[in-house]
Amino acid sequence: MKKHIHGGDVYRHQNVIDFSANCNPLGTPDSVKRAVTESMEQVYHYPDVRCQKLRDALSAYEEVPADWIICGNGAADLIFSLVLALKPKRALLPAPTFAEYEQALESVGCQVLHAAGREEDGFAVDQALLQAIDDTIDILFLCNPNNPTGILTEPERLEQVMDACRSHGVFLVLDECFLDFVCSPGKYTQKPSLEKRTDLFILKAFTKRYAMAGIRLGYGLCSSRDLLEKMKEVTQPWNVSTLAQAAGIAALKEKEYVDRATELIHRERGFLKEKMREAGLQVYDSQANYIFFKGPENLQELCLQEGLLIRDCGNYYGLARGYYRIAVRTHEENLTLMRAFEKVL
Amino acid sequence: MKKHIHGGDVYRHQNVIDFSANCNPLGTPDSVKRAVTESMEQVYHYPDVRCQKLRDALSAYEEVPADWIICGNGAADLIFSLVLALKPKRALLPAPTFAEYEQALESVGCQVLHAAGREEDGFAVDQALLQAIDDTIDILFLCNPNNPTGILTEPERLEQVMDACRSHGVFLVLDECFLDFVCSPGKYTQKPSLEKRTDLFILKAFTKRYAMAGIRLGYGLCSSRDLLEKMKEVTQPWNVSTLAQAAGIAALKEKEYVDRATELIHRERGFLKEKMREAGLQVYDSQANYIFFKGPENLQELCLQEGLLIRDCGNYYGLARGYYRIAVRTHEENLTLMRAFEKVL
Repeated sequence: MKKHIHGGDVYRHQNVIDFSANCNPLGTPDSVKRAVTESMEQVYHYPDVRCQKLRDALSAYEEVPADWIICGNGAADLIFSLVLALKPKRALLPAPTFAEYEQALESVGCQVLHAAGREEDGFAVDQALLQAIDDTIDILFLCNPNNPTGILTEPERLEQVMDACRSHGVFLVLDECFLDFVCSPGKYTQKPSLEKRTDLFILKAFTKRYAMAGIRLGYGLCSSRDLLEKMKEVTQPWNVSTLAQAAGIAALKEKEYVDRATELIHRERGFLKEKMREAGLQVYDSQANYIFFKGPENLQELCLQEGLLIRDCGNYYGLARGYYRIAVRTHEENLTLMRAFEKVL
Repeated sequence: MKKHIHGGDVYRHQNVIDFSANCNPLGTPDSVKRAVTESMEQVYHYPDVRCQKLRDALSAYEEVPADWIICGNGAADLIFSLVLALKPKRALLPAPTFAEYEQALESVGCQVLHAAGREEDGFAVDQALLQAIDDTIDILFLCNPNNPTGILTEPERLEQVMDACRSHGVFLVLDECFLDFVCSPGKYTQKPSLEKRTDLFILKAFTKRYAMAGIRLGYGLCSSRDLLEKMKEVTQPWNVSTLAQAAGIAALKEKEYVDRATELIHRERGFLKEKMREAGLQVYDSQANYIFFKGPENLQELCLQEGLLIRDCGNYYGLARGYYRIAVRTHEENLTLMRAFEKVL
């Protein structure tokens, strides 16, 4: 089915450079690889159902209490368990956005409304979304920066959204999975709001920050212990593997690696945007570690012929054909992609 | 909460020999450890959403078509996604049995009926269960051999259950996760029935057979492609990690290891039953790689003082205090447990 096409499918596209998934271009840290190998001596046992050591490490890293933290088999796992715990009847989503929100909502029979942004603003969160928040809505998912567009919602606008959610009793899921690689994430994260509101859930992942998509590890932050307890009740007890728990604990120590990646991404994001605009592509103002743009309808096929996999975003709700997303990778890889664009365009 | 107590919690009970979880006593095969370490070079990428290589390997191993196979983040993951896909209104469970069936059923608001077996038969599937199957029931979970009792349902009785399910339109989930270590599993497995019925789902796990509980990998067999597709729609696409897929492919080659474990378990199961009966315990006739028995109410605490963790089954629906389960481990470990029993009883 068209809607179940995903980025990062290197299994059906072999020997390509993968620009379709958005992971840290520095690759998985060696310390994470070592931690997983060492933890293999423990896999005879079931994983720790409480993820205690990992949650303690996350508590120090995120500066929130450990009992506000829930871990999952990737952030996507938590989207499904959150929806199953809340069983919303009517949801609001911006369009386009990450497809798994809608997939999860449909799994509990929830009606999904879409508020499409304007193309000229890169489909940014705007007045239309704000106005669609009313008493009939139970839940709103907001991805900041948005996937696939990379557009950031500014703090002032976000505050309006949060106020509207509060007035209308709408539960807000804020997906901050891609916030790590924007400039000044501290200006955008809503972690400080967690203390005041129990109707806010912030989603985070290890996948992108530490390039460990294949291990599966994500987490959520929420000050409603009741909700976290409810999410555990609708999930198997052993959803986070021993390997993922060990990988996460090791990854959180990789501060210098994240700093290096952030610097690289900021530099390369600028380079790519400039080159792509020079090549005549319509490039939106992504602040994330990927770039959203418009190009010819057969660009994905043309790139594949050059051994490069880019994300065709034509299957996102609200997008027509001709929209694409590429990950920001290393300079050499980015150069290869730019040369291919020059050749095929 | 009492019902959320599980076996195998070596994190809250450190430096014990764990008899509370039922894994292969030979430990995780080296080939599985190596496969996971090698696959760490691939975790930069998302896992294969189709688990193609693993499903092909399972297809050869189980001798069923690859498109009858669905993989999950442990067998427990599949219990939840199956229930979410089917959304049954009324379920029937034998009592006692594996607690996660009920937990999953409750996650979709399903009403759960219990048919308790008779204690003197080790709570075996009997006439009471058969009679409880009627048109009001949507789904029945049957674990063969049962967990925690280890009691096998004989083929004739199983056929009666299957016939009753068919006449009353009841979907049957047959959990064969512990079937590998009984004598003549081929006599009991209902794999041959899959072709004739699309209302049968057989659950299997790598956890026990290959001692890899911490990796998380299970699978299901079903000839209804519609149902498998539905299960995928209510689950995140990347639920089976790259590490688990690699581990599974390596594990399936470990034939000699499984043979050795099977022989060890058959021998030690007999030894343990005999010794435990000599010690005055009421031992039920488990045919699995664990033994269910009745003992004094404080036996778990007494064993913990000896550095041995056994499973207190008092939190299973249908069981009072004083029921326990121990895993069959190596002869030396089993001797240690028997000496502790002699000492504390």
